[in-house]
Amino acid sequence: MAPSASDEPAPMHLPVISKASTISASVLHGPRDLRLERRSIEDPDVGELQIAVKTTGICGSDVSYYKKFANGDLCACMPLSLGHESSGTVVAIGPHVSGFSVGDRVALEVGIPCGQCGICRQGRYNLCKKMRFRSSAKSVPHFQGCLQERINHPANWCHKLPDNISFDAAALLEPLSVAIHAVNRASPTPGSTALVLGAGTVGLLTAAMARQAGCAAVTITDVDQGRVDYAVAKGFATHGYVVPRPLHTSSSSSSISSGSMSGTSTPLDGVMTPASTLSFRSQLDSARMLATEMLSLTNSSTPLLVEDEDDGVDITFECTGKEICMHTALYATRPGGKVIMVGMGTPIQTLPMSVAHLREIDILGIFRYANTYPTGIRLLRAQALGSPSGFTLPSLDDMVTHRFKGLENARGAFELASRTVDDDGNLVLKVVIEA
Amino acid sequence: MAPSASDEPAPMHLPVISKASTISASVLHGPRDLRLERRSIEDPDVGELQIAVKTTGICGSDVSYYKKFANGDLCACMPLSLGHESSGTVVAIGPHVSGFSVGDRVALEVGIPCGQCGICRQGRYNLCKKMRFRSSAKSVPHFQGCLQERINHPANWCHKLPDNISFDAAALLEPLSVAIHAVNRASPTPGSTALVLGAGTVGLLTAAMARQAGCAAVTITDVDQGRVDYAVAKGFATHGYVVPRPLHTSSSSSSISSGSMSGTSTPLDGVMTPASTLSFRSQLDSARMLATEMLSLTNSSTPLLVEDEDDGVDITFECTGKEICMHTALYATRPGGKVIMVGMGTPIQTLPMSVAHLREIDILGIFRYANTYPTGIRLLRAQALGSPSGFTLPSLDDMVTHRFKGLENARGAFELASRTVDDDGNLVLKVVIEA
Amino acid sequence: MAPSASDEPAPMHLPVISKASTISASVLHGPRDLRLERRSIEDPDVGELQIAVKTTGICGSDVSYYKKFANGDLCACMPLSLGHESSGTVVAIGPHVSGFSVGDRVALEVGIPCGQCGICRQGRYNLCKKMRFRSSAKSVPHFQGCLQERINHPANWCHKLPDNISFDAAALLEPLSVAIHAVNRASPTPGSTALVLGAGTVGLLTAAMARQAGCAAVTITDVDQGRVDYAVAKGFATHGYVVPRPLHTSSSSSSISSGSMSGTSTPLDGVMTPASTLSFRSQLDSARMLATEMLSLTNSSTPLLVEDEDDGVDITFECTGKEICMHTALYATRPGGKVIMVGMGTPIQTLPMSVAHLREIDILGIFRYANTYPTGIRLLRAQALGSPSGFTLPSLDDMVTHRFKGLENARGAFELASRTVDDDGNLVLKVVIEA
Amino acid sequence: MAPSASDEPAPMHLPVISKASTISASVLHGPRDLRLERRSIEDPDVGELQIAVKTTGICGSDVSYYKKFANGDLCACMPLSLGHESSGTVVAIGPHVSGFSVGDRVALEVGIPCGQCGICRQGRYNLCKKMRFRSSAKSVPHFQGCLQERINHPANWCHKLPDNISFDAAALLEPLSVAIHAVNRASPTPGSTALVLGAGTVGLLTAAMARQAGCAAVTITDVDQGRVDYAVAKGFATHGYVVPRPLHTSSSSSSISSGSMSGTSTPLDGVMTPASTLSFRSQLDSARMLATEMLSLTNSSTPLLVEDEDDGVDITFECTGKEICMHTALYATRPGGKVIMVGMGTPIQTLPMSVAHLREIDILGIFRYANTYPTGIRLLRAQALGSPSGFTLPSLDDMVTHRFKGLENARGAFELASRTVDDDGNLVLKVVIEA
Repeated sequence: MAPSASDEPAPMHLPVISKASTISASVLHGPRDLRLERRSIEDPDVGELQIAVKTTGICGSDVSYYKKFANGDLCACMPLSLGHESSGTVVAIGPHVSGFSVGDRVALEVGIPCGQCGICRQGRYNLCKKMRFRSSAKSVPHFQGCLQERINHPANWCHKLPDNISFDAAALLEPLSVAIHAVNRASPTPGSTALVLGAGTVGLLTAAMARQAGCAAVTITDVDQGRVDYAVAKGFATHGYVVPRPLHTSSSSSSISSGSMSGTSTPLDGVMTPASTLSFRSQLDSARMLATEMLSLTNSSTPLLVEDEDDGVDITFECTGKEICMHTALYATRPGGKVIMVGMGTPIQTLPMSVAHLREIDILGIFRYANTYPTGIRLLRAQALGSPSGFTLPSLDDMVTHRFKGLENARGAFELASRTVDDDGNLVLKVVIEA
Repeated sequence: MAPSASDEPAPMHLPVISKASTISASVLHGPRDLRLERRSIEDPDVGELQIAVKTTGICGSDVSYYKKFANGDLCACMPLSLGHESSGTVVAIGPHVSGFSVGDRVALEVGIPCGQCGICRQGRYNLCKKMRFRSSAKSVPHFQGCLQERINHPANWCHKLPDNISFDAAALLEPLSVAIHAVNRASPTPGSTALVLGAGTVGLLTAAMARQAGCAAVTITDVDQGRVDYAVAKGFATHGYVVPRPLHTSSSSSSISSGSMSGTSTPLDGVMTPASTLSFRSQLDSARMLATEMLSLTNSSTPLLVEDEDDGVDITFECTGKEICMHTALYATRPGGKVIMVGMGTPIQTLPMSVAHLREIDILGIFRYANTYPTGIRLLRAQALGSPSGFTLPSLDDMVTHRFKGLENARGAFELASRTVDDDGNLVLKVVIEA
Repeated sequence: MAPSASDEPAPMHLPVISKASTISASVLHGPRDLRLERRSIEDPDVGELQIAVKTTGICGSDVSYYKKFANGDLCACMPLSLGHESSGTVVAIGPHVSGFSVGDRVALEVGIPCGQCGICRQGRYNLCKKMRFRSSAKSVPHFQGCLQERINHPANWCHKLPDNISFDAAALLEPLSVAIHAVNRASPTPGSTALVLGAGTVGLLTAAMARQAGCAAVTITDVDQGRVDYAVAKGFATHGYVVPRPLHTSSSSSSISSGSMSGTSTPLDGVMTPASTLSFRSQLDSARMLATEMLSLTNSSTPLLVEDEDDGVDITFECTGKEICMHTALYATRPGGKVIMVGMGTPIQTLPMSVAHLREIDILGIFRYANTYPTGIRLLRAQALGSPSGFTLPSLDDMVTHRFKGLENARGAFELASRTVDDDGNLVLKVVIEA
Repeated sequence: MAPSASDEPAPMHLPVISKASTISASVLHGPRDLRLERRSIEDPDVGELQIAVKTTGICGSDVSYYKKFANGDLCACMPLSLGHESSGTVVAIGPHVSGFSVGDRVALEVGIPCGQCGICRQGRYNLCKKMRFRSSAKSVPHFQGCLQERINHPANWCHKLPDNISFDAAALLEPLSVAIHAVNRASPTPGSTALVLGAGTVGLLTAAMARQAGCAAVTITDVDQGRVDYAVAKGFATHGYVVPRPLHTSSSSSSISSGSMSGTSTPLDGVMTPASTLSFRSQLDSARMLATEMLSLTNSSTPLLVEDEDDGVDITFECTGKEICMHTALYATRPGGKVIMVGMGTPIQTLPMSVAHLREIDILGIFRYANTYPTGIRLLRAQALGSPSGFTLPSLDDMVTHRFKGLENARGAFELASRTVDDDGNLVLKVVIEA
């Protein structure tokens, strides 16, 4: 399968019966070297749709590529269009495609697995070794991202949208998919308790999905008061806990650039003085105390009735990728509970593994998502029904705090997406670029 | 362990240092032979609490005993106090009990398993062969029900209540437990679709729990328009479907007396002419058409986006115990889905088993509940927190449509509980007796 | 995707650069109207291999088509090659295929799902609505079976064989797949007890897989003494029980023709006098007694140590498709256990559903299989390692009791496959046709 | 419940109608301060049996207490009888016990949970906070171990033995329980592949249970050639890999004293030069290379057929408790697989968590066991049936390599149990003390 949009400059003299046309694309050539270019695009191939991209959300991994031309261990080795949280409209239909019409509104699932290996056939296609994922530097040549005017995409990985789901919300189906997958892996029983560490986009959506899955109490934590307040005010979580920043930390503004693949979170590490000046044991003690405080907060507002409740929450979703947060996660979870590693971050971590081992706390990582888009669409569609007694997700549209129009303004979007507040002091949650 | 309240008449002359006192009890001696009696009650034994019963809900099985002195195959063989949906206040504390104070408000879990057999140790204590369940004729001597002034009950099976849970709601924790157990067995993933057949107490609560567990669309059906309307208006379900009654059926008013153990449901069988005059094949065809109609109702209001959706719902909860409803359930469920048998009813059923077999629809029965009271309490406690964005159960207090004060008025409660509307035409959902 | 071998007669005048060649095929045109024909076969298309079929096992569904030109509700409407338990050798390789060489030995997985619908992506591709399955009349035009000299088959559904797996054993990977899927759905914990009803090919293999999965005691039952003896002697099961035939039954020889899709089993119905002369209640009583006898057999040889053991086995695999066997299955399974419906048979069954409901016995059907071939190959490969302490499946080669050479002798194979003993009184288990 | 045997010296003048008698006990008073003492024992209380202990196996945790009067973080604070792998004979029966006779042979499950807390009721009683476990210093006063002539033990936690299970094998039911629990948590599907790190008692039994559960290939590794050879020769594993020791390591003999609760394993750390002289990155590289070598060993003997197989095993059981082995475990496991932490060891570990996170490798710890004794007894009982085709565990009796008679010889047993070979160069696996 050829990349849907080539890197070659558009040919000068198009033949009369052209099969290609010209589009503009936002292309990253190196750290902060973002260029608006013209690319040629072929007609959609067998099984493909051509999509005019409408909205693309900026993710932490995009910001990382933008700043470093790399994301964690992955270094880009050729020009790369970013953006993988996208929705758009069908503008052309390739051969052998059925079920779509020009004008259909769709959300794009941008990771294309092989569909035939053992793990694909078993339904865990997110783990397919041959996965090609738009805007990631993993496969070479890179599978180009969605910050292009139009792209050709396999119809099988385009999800039709009902009228009540906006393009913004549809773009947010991507981070919502991470949250859905995280909660599916956790499989809480109704009435469970959950803790979410990190109140970035993915943390917020994970908290909301934990509530959707029936968790009776969902506590969200972050060092950023604004995000915690937002989470509770908008119903993403039932309780919020602001992790106190120490006086002399300067990590607050830069920390977010570490970004995870699946949404940025303000890390909690501000709470710690540098590891080198603090013994690891006292680090663990801090984490344990923090866990106790978080639990007592929840329990104080809801008097303790079941004796086991002070042992910890049923499930902790770690959405920051920070080692110190994994410590907190392990101490805050009850025996027999689960810690879900959502936020990608420190690849090598020093952890009190006996806490998990002796208490049989399962540690489950999640990598992207599988089979989540139909679920997400169903949940967003249900919002519109307006049932009298809740049970629907908070508004995703509301999470879009900043909007940039036109690919030519992508640079501003990336710069803003790396901050937690804008120049006016307003919360920055999700920045989107509209085509 | 001796029964908590004996059947013997109270002794005339109590000794000076008495360990027993006298209580009033509502005792059934035969079909509709309900008597208000005086019984003696011992002080609470080791590990027991003495509970002054405040509220007891009337269940379908209670109505069955009241009318027939039997419930399904179980025939009472001695006087039997009914009532197993109860809450009350601790009035005395036996030896070796800790964690309780006089005045504590509690919900009673009235089934006492042995705690030591293989299945108890594996956490499925509801299946314990030695289970003793109050108000049931299964164990002999019968384990007396809660329609008594006070009872002694193992402290381990009394669940403390937070202030925000009323005695009414606490009594309803029993049918809610059935619903919680049903949904735990179904373990829907968030965004699933569900169908609930029967809108009695258990059907309503099961629908609400399906929503709590994250189901995006929950359709409830019943022959009774009032119940269906109630379910949708109050947010128990997202969609309602009233099964049309044929012209010449007379089963409407009496049908409810068939009652299930765990809540009564208006059966759907009114829709069918007598089986003897109708070939079984056409019965099945009717069930299939009914299933299609129910599905299309849901799908019409929510345009079909995922191609598989017209194959059926993910999970069907059958809460009527009727064979015809099992047919509908099997036809209405998608390949790979689940049918949960909740409502007890026809012991021998003729079913299109190949529909389940060839489509791998799991058929899972539920018998009472295990480990559900802490969950139920946590969910009801969460209601009080008043989060802005829903995700809480509908009010259980609101389900108590009729209230009788004093055990001496139990007869009226049983008579009313066997009807679906009262003399004023108001919906009868849950009838409770207050001590 | 075009059928791999067309029904059209071979063209008379082949062009010079032919893309088609001529093969012989065994084709069924009506009940017992089996013809040896010449068909043309194209070169393998994109993604396809051309396989010279070596061994094909005859399944109960094949016998059903052979006798009735129909299998259950499915009626053939055009000429149909039978056979779906096949192995062969790669003789040509289509474009865009990698990982295969001419001469590779392969087992054929003959059901081709769409790979893109929701249920395929979730890993349950056996339930795909667009599934095309060779030798079945379900899809029209029928997807032709393997009793052809050569076929073109998607490389993705050809499984390479190590040297130690014979073509016979490889053909038996198909019924073994049914057994693997059945046991995967049952997911027994090591040390479980199992009962297998029916000792045909699928019953035997299911018993062996139950042992493979760690079941400590596996009892197999059949009306045929020879099969039961074989099962125990060869280690498929640990215990055998021969269901006594009543004196005046004549159903013994014909019963097998009812066949299931996935292997024939001698039904137990011989034990019953006609249902019409026997009340259903007494039928159930018979089933219950039979269940008790089967359990006591196992328990007598292994003195009862765990008190719950007399409550039934953990898992019952029903491999006959007979209603009376489902009765036995339900009564023979412990509370909290599982009944797996393996053998297809009576579409509409009258069952004591309360036995399952009140004891929470899960009823799980299986339809074919998914993700089983790699497992089966791994298990057969392990046989060859010859570890000192067992844990390997019984020999599958040994199950091939009769062998016919040449497609021209297919008729004899079908006739014999419908019997349980041959003319010499020898057991008939698996009949294969060698190309 | 009072401790079953008190620490007080026996009273001098017993009353005529004595309820106590005098026994000998092996009691540890400090590091290597093991004394043979006289203790008094009461008659068995309500619900208790008095057991004459016949065989007790020495576990790694026993050796740790013997040497350091502590086990990991747990320090003994009063005299402590060791031993928790025990079998014996019923010599007296307390009130309210049924189902046992004097002379019954039993295995002792020595951890007594509360039975009433949430986690007990959910079937995970091994995680009960109130658990009292014999020979452990965790509860105070310590719950005395089994190296006593007789002990009183709750009948509910005594498991009757069939004749074919020896006292030796019955003592080994305790480490077998750890293995059963580990495999239950892993829940391999039949045909899975497994890797077991560490070939001590628990490693060997875990490997055997992995085979019992249907794993087709089980590779065991250790630095000790003798143990690896034993494992393969006796059928505990299908493949063995001896981890090469570097030339200049001196950790071989002392390393075992670190012992885990549930069986000792020769750690693999000999392979590494001190961490301080080696960068952590190169440590990880070594672990990755080691993992690759282990996998290629298995795959070379069994030619690679399924393309995913070189991605790692389905399940790795880490039985050494060493950090370096956790590294190997993570690298050796396939995407979507599981690492089970069995061996307790280094409480704080530095791990390449992204390897687990990005590949969704679940990390599951196990702590002791729950609901395993009936399973173990069923599996050992099945050994005696002598089915022709394997599927039974290797002999547990054979694992008892050394035997000491009389509690007065306990010291010799502890000294030997801390070694991997005896003075004659014979393998030391399980050392038992016979009463």
